[in-house]
Amino acid sequence: MTLSFRFITFTSDYGMEDEFVGVCHGVIKRFAPEVQIIDVSHALPPQDVRAGAIVLAQAVKYMPPAVHLGIVDPGVGTLRRAVVIGTKAGPPLVGPDNGLLWLAAEVLGGPVQAHEITAEELCLTPISRTFHGRDIFAPVAARLALGMPPEQVGPAFDVEKLTRLELPVAKVDDDHVHGVVVQTDHFGNLQLNVHREELEGVGVMLGDLLEIRIGGKSHHVQYCTTFSEVAVGRLGVLEDAYRRIAIVENRGSASKRLEAHRGDHVILARAPKKAT
Amino acid sequence: MTLSFRFITFTSDYGMEDEFVGVCHGVIKRFAPEVQIIDVSHALPPQDVRAGAIVLAQAVKYMPPAVHLGIVDPGVGTLRRAVVIGTKAGPPLVGPDNGLLWLAAEVLGGPVQAHEITAEELCLTPISRTFHGRDIFAPVAARLALGMPPEQVGPAFDVEKLTRLELPVAKVDDDHVHGVVVQTDHFGNLQLNVHREELEGVGVMLGDLLEIRIGGKSHHVQYCTTFSEVAVGRLGVLEDAYRRIAIVENRGSASKRLEAHRGDHVILARAPKKAT
Amino acid sequence: MTLSFRFITFTSDYGMEDEFVGVCHGVIKRFAPEVQIIDVSHALPPQDVRAGAIVLAQAVKYMPPAVHLGIVDPGVGTLRRAVVIGTKAGPPLVGPDNGLLWLAAEVLGGPVQAHEITAEELCLTPISRTFHGRDIFAPVAARLALGMPPEQVGPAFDVEKLTRLELPVAKVDDDHVHGVVVQTDHFGNLQLNVHREELEGVGVMLGDLLEIRIGGKSHHVQYCTTFSEVAVGRLGVLEDAYRRIAIVENRGSASKRLEAHRGDHVILARAPKKAT
Repeated sequence: MTLSFRFITFTSDYGMEDEFVGVCHGVIKRFAPEVQIIDVSHALPPQDVRAGAIVLAQAVKYMPPAVHLGIVDPGVGTLRRAVVIGTKAGPPLVGPDNGLLWLAAEVLGGPVQAHEITAEELCLTPISRTFHGRDIFAPVAARLALGMPPEQVGPAFDVEKLTRLELPVAKVDDDHVHGVVVQTDHFGNLQLNVHREELEGVGVMLGDLLEIRIGGKSHHVQYCTTFSEVAVGRLGVLEDAYRRIAIVENRGSASKRLEAHRGDHVILARAPKKAT
Repeated sequence: MTLSFRFITFTSDYGMEDEFVGVCHGVIKRFAPEVQIIDVSHALPPQDVRAGAIVLAQAVKYMPPAVHLGIVDPGVGTLRRAVVIGTKAGPPLVGPDNGLLWLAAEVLGGPVQAHEITAEELCLTPISRTFHGRDIFAPVAARLALGMPPEQVGPAFDVEKLTRLELPVAKVDDDHVHGVVVQTDHFGNLQLNVHREELEGVGVMLGDLLEIRIGGKSHHVQYCTTFSEVAVGRLGVLEDAYRRIAIVENRGSASKRLEAHRGDHVILARAPKKAT
Repeated sequence: MTLSFRFITFTSDYGMEDEFVGVCHGVIKRFAPEVQIIDVSHALPPQDVRAGAIVLAQAVKYMPPAVHLGIVDPGVGTLRRAVVIGTKAGPPLVGPDNGLLWLAAEVLGGPVQAHEITAEELCLTPISRTFHGRDIFAPVAARLALGMPPEQVGPAFDVEKLTRLELPVAKVDDDHVHGVVVQTDHFGNLQLNVHREELEGVGVMLGDLLEIRIGGKSHHVQYCTTFSEVAVGRLGVLEDAYRRIAIVENRGSASKRLEAHRGDHVILARAPKKAT
């Protein structure tokens, strides 16, 4: 059998304790036994659409051509649309239209086509009210991998009507940058919405000492290129693998150390030179 | 190579921190490199046969034709039997005979054949006393996928002698239902042994306000069809994706909110109308 | 396409909350869509090279012929080498040269070839400073599976210069054995660097009562063959599935019970006979 896509990537907040993820795999394999499933993550914070959107967007760029299945769906069973989004780069996205897929669609060149999934004959029926991953999204993703055109899932609608999700933009203010923690990772690194250019725009150079203010406290940390340039157990600031500025701790968790979480505001500036 | 089953599903309490799951995958692939493994869950509560039985039973119905490998095995190394169970629907089950496989066998039409695994030549030898997943169950599952008939694993025995696992049955008592929490899931939903028909049998209709008594307290909650019908952070009662009545919290954990766990007793009734 | 290795095993401390593991899978599949990936574990203690080395070494013996990809890399971005190690048994190991791969190399007959990965054209460029799994190790592992000889990754160096990792050796001292906890597992079992021969060397036989001293306390426990020989909730000592002596609790966690962790010292001896 020739597949249109050999791969389906799968990102969800279903967790690993239950059969939810395995059941979706099973449903996909019933329709498309040859397709390979790449699990991106299923341990996203429950019902956290924004966290899911970031993880999915960071993943799709590195994936082989694939149908991208994303499910973080606090509105399951409501009027929120179930959608297939066609992207300029080619790979389609499948999931709830709640912003989860938006950032990934942008990474893939932007949405060029949107269809609401209404074709019940593609779904497991009767469709449950609480597990659309199993009943709607998995079977539709399998069919797209098999070559079914998105048109068949249901009526097209204007991509301008897709639910967007915007990340806050860092603000450069004279000699300092106002940023926000957009993500914390497994190692406790704090990923900011700040980029190298913004730091450099306020006069911070590699090797400089930075003053960062977060959670009502101020810290002096080095702007470095790798974890290991700071001493074990010390904080540093560096450009991470996704080209975002991150606050990290060498062999420790910056998130724990600073008691910091997603959404926290951060101010970064070059540390004042000590009087001599 | 032609496989009798293209898939092996794998459910265990082995956890993800160690190499246990990966080693079983490796052993399966040594014997049956073409077979695809669908992981149902490996984060079951350790040594909790009942939790494993429920997860496995809920999963098998949605799987493609497969050998179902289930391992939650507090009695590993004892006289409990290692078994292959043939089912009316076809897919065989492999694992310890401690009740873990019972509910899944029922979902698959009931057990029609039971064989104790005694053929050491099918196993990794010397067979350890503590890791039968690796040494017995994984290699046997692989062979069944390759087409080996169950007869070859060892002597048949009467399916009536299989260890059963019975879920408690809800009791309808005049105007209220006595139920039990049979499972809590990743989202903190409390799945009950109660079905829609029983609720309706005591006069509860969709949209009604229910009184639920659990953990010595009483709560008034709505009987609804989706999470989103109750306000964020409020409790609701609904029919879940497995057609069980569940107590849920919209964007929160009912389990945490009610400090409720599997086995807890619940009484559900239509809430009395307020005097006007 | 003919693969030199049909399998890549993958062991890391990347965790499951983020896209790290999925992204490495995606990168491997871009280069080698046919290769099968066996995940050993990704929930190793963060940046714990020793724990990773033990898990990997315990896994490789049970795997089909494979490229073994191991990433626990606290020194990412520093001068630590990125390496491919050829082994006597055949399967190559890929990862950072920090000791992580050493024990697995020994299990595979010992290292016979070592190459530093310097060929940037094999990598995703620009190579990040913090995610060599994605940018270096995954693409190199994929190429090795496809048949690229290790010579092409970069210059050979003397295997004697590989970073070693030695596990502490148990010490038999007259009538008792000094051991160390080398690993704790998902079930809370404490795996020691002690073997059956050493216990027997101090006169301990199966069924005997042992005195174990750990954490400043003394416990009398039975030397048995399976969990179930001790009462539920009681401690026992047995030979585990990797032929190491382990302290276990039947249906409980010895690690929690004893508040014991890796590295803790243990003294084992035959318990003195009570005066009669």
